[in-house]
Amino acid sequence: MLSTTPRTTLGRKKHRAVTDRSALHEVLDEGLICHLGIVRDGVPLVLPTGYGRDGDTLYLHGSTGAASLRTAAHGLDVCVTVTLLDGIVYSRSVNNHSMNYRSAVIFGTAKPLEAEAKMHGLKVLTDHLAPGSWEHAREVNAKEFAAVRVLALDLAEASVKMRAEGPDDEPEDVGADTAWAGVLPVRTVFGAPEPSADLSPGWTVPPHVAGRE
Amino acid sequence: MLSTTPRTTLGRKKHRAVTDRSALHEVLDEGLICHLGIVRDGVPLVLPTGYGRDGDTLYLHGSTGAASLRTAAHGLDVCVTVTLLDGIVYSRSVNNHSMNYRSAVIFGTAKPLEAEAKMHGLKVLTDHLAPGSWEHAREVNAKEFAAVRVLALDLAEASVKMRAEGPDDEPEDVGADTAWAGVLPVRTVFGAPEPSADLSPGWTVPPHVAGRE
Repeated sequence: MLSTTPRTTLGRKKHRAVTDRSALHEVLDEGLICHLGIVRDGVPLVLPTGYGRDGDTLYLHGSTGAASLRTAAHGLDVCVTVTLLDGIVYSRSVNNHSMNYRSAVIFGTAKPLEAEAKMHGLKVLTDHLAPGSWEHAREVNAKEFAAVRVLALDLAEASVKMRAEGPDDEPEDVGADTAWAGVLPVRTVFGAPEPSADLSPGWTVPPHVAGRE
Repeated sequence: MLSTTPRTTLGRKKHRAVTDRSALHEVLDEGLICHLGIVRDGVPLVLPTGYGRDGDTLYLHGSTGAASLRTAAHGLDVCVTVTLLDGIVYSRSVNNHSMNYRSAVIFGTAKPLEAEAKMHGLKVLTDHLAPGSWEHAREVNAKEFAAVRVLALDLAEASVKMRAEGPDDEPEDVGADTAWAGVLPVRTVFGAPEPSADLSPGWTVPPHVAGRE
């Protein structure tokens, strides 16, 4: 079960909350980027960031645009949100239009990693961004390893919300039958791989890229 | 030109900043959801939210899970981020893996709207979420109008960042030629419309849904 601290308890639409750890993992594993929120100079800052999950730890790229992320030696209060948009819900009334989605919201203190833990975090981040690349590409050297920052965030305080259904119309609007109602699915897909302009001609696209789904 | 206040000036990778208002508009118009950051009880909260743009005003659905958004009578400091993921960049080294993306980050005070301004905001939100539905679906009635909240955010303080290029490999890695390099495009697409289970059989999918791209 996911924790239900006051800040992860939903104020409304409680039926959309999912208190199931496997649902949390599924959203995090399917997403490609997260939105990382921090407080800087008293105001919010939200940045898109790469991430990866291993068990109940979320790893974050700390080399983002926010200096506070790079300099937080003892950790930083963050809110990390991953959202998957699944569909546009067309209802018979403007007011009942909605979206189908799955979202995970995680609160906690993101802590910088060092040594083996940092290397493990880099592998998890790479496996999430580009599965197979950790084995295929040239490994991280000492200089690169020193320059990169990896933060870890415990998944202890997290919630999942989702909507996955058709239009929720008023009975009188269904009866009036004056508008179409349904769902337009939204999907994220990969296109055909585009080899680098300077790639030598002998290469074919390797299976970990060509077969990615 | 976009403003360059200290908080929208990038600390690194300055070449990725785009100080062009049309680029800001393009990112906002292409995205479907934003991530809205606020500070609540001193810590960040990031929630996915519907939005729409008209000129240099961003309209936000205020009926989200955060009570502070619904009760902020005089406005609330927010950071709104819209991110379009365009590709996974496979480099010859693990360290140079990256993402192609376009993101807009907006800072400001989101203010609740009333009366005509609120109705206009609802139209802009609807036109963004579901173009054509404002004309096609049943209009908002007085009770629905009273219950909904719409916030407006000025686009005065905004920045756009993007990466739209192939791998940026070290010359020695290009020379070694031991790994594939290129970009795997990522796209958001609409699937085939799914009529509501309770839709009467005479309907065909209307053009504003069937033809959406």
